[in-house]
Amino acid sequence: MKFKIAKKDFLDALSLSSRAISSTTPLPSLSGIKISVTDNSLVLVSSDSNISIRTAINNNDSAALIIEETGEIVLNARFLLEIVRKIDSDFIEVETIDGTLIKISGGNSEFKVNGMEADEYPLINFESRDNNPFKLDTTLFNQIIDETAFACSDKETRPVLTGVNFKAKGNKLYANATDSYRLASKTIDIDQDLDFNITIPSKYLSEIYHAIANEEQVTIAIDTQKISFIFGNSIIDTRLLDDDFPDTSRLIPNSYSQKLTVSSKEMINAIDRTLFIKSDGKNTVKMNIDPEKIELTATNQSMVSSFETIKVISYEGEPLEISCSGKYLQDAIKAIGSDEITINFSGELKPMVVKKEGDDSLIQIISPVRTYR
Amino acid sequence: MKFKIAKKDFLDALSLSSRAISSTTPLPSLSGIKISVTDNSLVLVSSDSNISIRTAINNNDSAALIIEETGEIVLNARFLLEIVRKIDSDFIEVETIDGTLIKISGGNSEFKVNGMEADEYPLINFESRDNNPFKLDTTLFNQIIDETAFACSDKETRPVLTGVNFKAKGNKLYANATDSYRLASKTIDIDQDLDFNITIPSKYLSEIYHAIANEEQVTIAIDTQKISFIFGNSIIDTRLLDDDFPDTSRLIPNSYSQKLTVSSKEMINAIDRTLFIKSDGKNTVKMNIDPEKIELTATNQSMVSSFETIKVISYEGEPLEISCSGKYLQDAIKAIGSDEITINFSGELKPMVVKKEGDDSLIQIISPVRTYR
Repeated sequence: MKFKIAKKDFLDALSLSSRAISSTTPLPSLSGIKISVTDNSLVLVSSDSNISIRTAINNNDSAALIIEETGEIVLNARFLLEIVRKIDSDFIEVETIDGTLIKISGGNSEFKVNGMEADEYPLINFESRDNNPFKLDTTLFNQIIDETAFACSDKETRPVLTGVNFKAKGNKLYANATDSYRLASKTIDIDQDLDFNITIPSKYLSEIYHAIANEEQVTIAIDTQKISFIFGNSIIDTRLLDDDFPDTSRLIPNSYSQKLTVSSKEMINAIDRTLFIKSDGKNTVKMNIDPEKIELTATNQSMVSSFETIKVISYEGEPLEISCSGKYLQDAIKAIGSDEITINFSGELKPMVVKKEGDDSLIQIISPVRTYR
Repeated sequence: MKFKIAKKDFLDALSLSSRAISSTTPLPSLSGIKISVTDNSLVLVSSDSNISIRTAINNNDSAALIIEETGEIVLNARFLLEIVRKIDSDFIEVETIDGTLIKISGGNSEFKVNGMEADEYPLINFESRDNNPFKLDTTLFNQIIDETAFACSDKETRPVLTGVNFKAKGNKLYANATDSYRLASKTIDIDQDLDFNITIPSKYLSEIYHAIANEEQVTIAIDTQKISFIFGNSIIDTRLLDDDFPDTSRLIPNSYSQKLTVSSKEMINAIDRTLFIKSDGKNTVKMNIDPEKIELTATNQSMVSSFETIKVISYEGEPLEISCSGKYLQDAIKAIGSDEITINFSGELKPMVVKKEGDDSLIQIISPVRTYR
């Protein structure tokens, strides 16, 4: 194996590959990246067995890759990335010296790394049985992740809640995420008639988010147990969560008894000042709302308390006292991203609905906590 | 107790006070800052019992402090700093509500914190018995810290080595730091005839460094067990290390058999590329030096190795093979801070001397490690 490659292209490909590398893998070969050099391309494969990435650089793409000898090797991802990042040269040469001993050089630097035989690397099948892949704008896809993924559960007690559920039906795409105390629910119209119901682990969505950020569109293929994201010369396969995602539509109240509109920025800043006040590691804010103002309070066990007064833009209904996680309320308002925020209440123990007035495409639901007096 | 203060001034004073707060203190009151309000000043005292800080804001300094009622209280440093930082207002009001319950308010925010009685706070004596304090430029003092403190030991096995030794004698000030594998040694001429020999713990030097960074001069008073840094309305007292600092002058070789001059930047960058190659957690670089070039190599247990070639500016003596910590060599070259660096060798097992050619005011000594073949 022998090739010369532009440092920038190699580094980009290795950075992408590294997104599938786990620091704790039981299989030694999975701490490596499989490099396969054929007559006309360099292919990198990496995997933690839940997310797998294949990316190729073709030598006809540009003069950035010159292949002198084909071959395969598995090289430790962390060392490889560190070496290529550090070499002070526009071009990098990679060459088999003897068996699995590889030389990586550029400028005045020369590194030797002992790799593993490529046949020790597990076979990863990047084929998909989906005959009907579809394209999606990456801006839209990443916006959906921004608006929902934060609401996923970070506990493994109910694995399916650690993912974002994507459901397509009759030209609509629904994305839902919940940890059972809050729900982020996004609905968008799509110009394709798709039919699927899948849940993608949020930690892999975060890798996909960054991997596709510079692309315009991504092609998505859905198989029984995995989803493939295809862009440029790359493909990312991610395992899906098996269990059925709960039916979240029944969690969304369809009437309300109180309706509050307030400045998003003032709410976010007021909550921000109280976030350090925690009891049992949790920050809870109590809101006393009337047509004039919200009085927002938080208290902890060390007898520290805060009291914030926030002007109300409009309020309908009886005065209300309600408590909830300050962090959850802040997350919800940030995800909506509008200047003003509307919160619909149905009483002090019923879920509150946070949204932009007149826009039901994105709603954030938060369960209140009981107010202790 | 009741006062109103400009947020900026209060925050600056609290940030300074917080430098003496330890997150792990056995004495509950030491997690707090003692606030004493007299007719004409606000005084903050903080301490972790090794470093103590007293800072005052006088109400005749400016209109930035308005005292309405005198009094004393101890308030949790972390909460207090968080609250004052977060309050969105140019002025902050602090007021005793009832006993030890204090209200801190500004803008639309109001916080209540339960403090501790000031008489629960230990008595800290900021007086010094030094009748002959002297002034030092902070730029010079901080430069000495930059050039030496990194060479202190981070292990408590020999406590005196965790500090920088300052010795003054006959218009000379000597600063030395060593972890017994390397030595940073600075000598400066001073226009005062001082006589002392003290060792200041490096972790407190780092706090002093930042605390005095914006001052021009600092007044220093030395007592038997402590040193005081006096600037503006503030005083920082730091415990000294008891044990005798070893005599480092005999570690400095006064002759050499090889002398190398090389570009600092090229050496720093070449070492930088090898730093990730560690055996037993340590990065060791081997240098093969001849009149033309340095061949710098590093190897780890995972069979990763690097090979760097660095052009020599000048070299006197026989070719030499010598190994040392890459990090130590890099630290030494960075501390010297000149474009070119000179290294004097006395053989492969003798300490090497890193310095700027023709300047003996700062020398860095590094013990080599045995080269394994």
